Amino acid sequence: MTTPPDSLAHLNARLLQFARDRDWEQFHSPKNLAMALAGEAGELLEQFQWLTEAQSAQLTDKQRQAVAHELADILIYLIRLGERLDIDLIAAANEKMAINAQRYPIERVKGDARRAGEYDATSD
Amino acid sequence: MTTPPDSLAHLNARLLQFARDRDWEQFHSPKNLAMALAGEAGELLEQFQWLTEAQSAQLTDKQRQAVAHELADILIYLIRLGERLDIDLIAAANEKMAINAQRYPIERVKGDARRAGEYDATSD
Amino acid sequence: MTTPPDSLAHLNARLLQFARDRDWEQFHSPKNLAMALAGEAGELLEQFQWLTEAQSAQLTDKQRQAVAHELADILIYLIRLGERLDIDLIAAANEKMAINAQRYPIERVKGDARRAGEYDATSD
Amino acid sequence: MTTPPDSLAHLNARLLQFARDRDWEQFHSPKNLAMALAGEAGELLEQFQWLTEAQSAQLTDKQRQAVAHELADILIYLIRLGERLDIDLIAAANEKMAINAQRYPIERVKGDARRAGEYDATSD
Repeated sequence: MTTPPDSLAHLNARLLQFARDRDWEQFHSPKNLAMALAGEAGELLEQFQWLTEAQSAQLTDKQRQAVAHELADILIYLIRLGERLDIDLIAAANEKMAINAQRYPIERVKGDARRAGEYDATSD
Repeated sequence: MTTPPDSLAHLNARLLQFARDRDWEQFHSPKNLAMALAGEAGELLEQFQWLTEAQSAQLTDKQRQAVAHELADILIYLIRLGERLDIDLIAAANEKMAINAQRYPIERVKGDARRAGEYDATSD
Repeated sequence: MTTPPDSLAHLNARLLQFARDRDWEQFHSPKNLAMALAGEAGELLEQFQWLTEAQSAQLTDKQRQAVAHELADILIYLIRLGERLDIDLIAAANEKMAINAQRYPIERVKGDARRAGEYDATSD
Repeated sequence: MTTPPDSLAHLNARLLQFARDRDWEQFHSPKNLAMALAGEAGELLEQFQWLTEAQSAQLTDKQRQAVAHELADILIYLIRLGERLDIDLIAAANEKMAINAQRYPIERVKGDARRAGEYDATSD
């Protein structure tokens, strides 16, 4: 009996085939893929830039669909970057979460969101 | 017998707990999470901006580790956005891939990477 | 009698000299400069991502100083891009403002901020 | 006799009027303007993402026009941010250039482009 393929691994294989079918691997240097990912992140921002925070949590169906497509584009380039650089995204996220748990201990940061550098720069 | 939890679903649950433990859900409006994701995409760019495309595919161990952390940060905010907006990232990616397959037919785009709008604007 | 040099033209000359003194023009392809600019835009986002809109308009001196440096970085790369591509930034901005005045007539958009594509896609 | 208004100051006044005419100042919190600027930086990336560095320096007229419009959009939001936060962009750029001159002494960095943190982290 086989376990079902993990969803990211499955997407990765299909995206690689999609690029190969179009002879697009030549354009997919990590540098270029990073640009494409950041370009999609810019499109994501455009969905939210004139909305209040409250509005951003109450999207219309049309807005939510548009956001879903931007998230998809970002995920697609993220997977392509992982493939090109042989980086396991899930392992990297687990590693980063362990770092974050150390960097932001509950008792220190509860209810207070700042960036790591800001905590480090202040005595509290 | 249970199948293993999908990796993204598993990460999602842990990230939600991480935010709740710190009372950070109040800061995690979709608008703010989109900004945080794009900020991390900017950090990813900084890893590659002075490298040639060839160099970007031949990272040192130290560079590769730094890139892995940026990809992790992006994935983390992507998952948080999916959770807050009730968007299934894998389903969205599958839907977007189907759109891309229609938008970029192999015979039309093989070996030629442009953005969709550029193809549409030219007769070829 | 000479008029004082325009501030952007003056900065441009100094930035070009700064790059030449360091033999950095070789790295300043428009592609790379665009990445550097977007990376700085990402740092700008990080200054604001966990602030409310109201807080973003009431920065502490320290926050305001940090934001000023990010705006400076963005302006610097903008000027470098203009120089490399022989684009007059002021003329381009004037041209874009004329386009915007047509795209967003006062009587149509007053008090309603959406992106151009959203106006066009709706009957109102 | 009056000296001509500086180009940035002149643009600033016109952009402020443009926003006021449309009752758009209510949307122009620094947080929102930062998002809009970063969104435009993402559009700039999209112009260059599949071009080689050499191609990015040899744009067609059409590509160059598109890039000019993106640079204009970025400048426009930069000026709006300066206005809202009472930050003098030229003064900020001059201050940042003085910092950069100290951070990147010619004899140390000539012909070698890395980010400041990378220089600091290495013995050379």
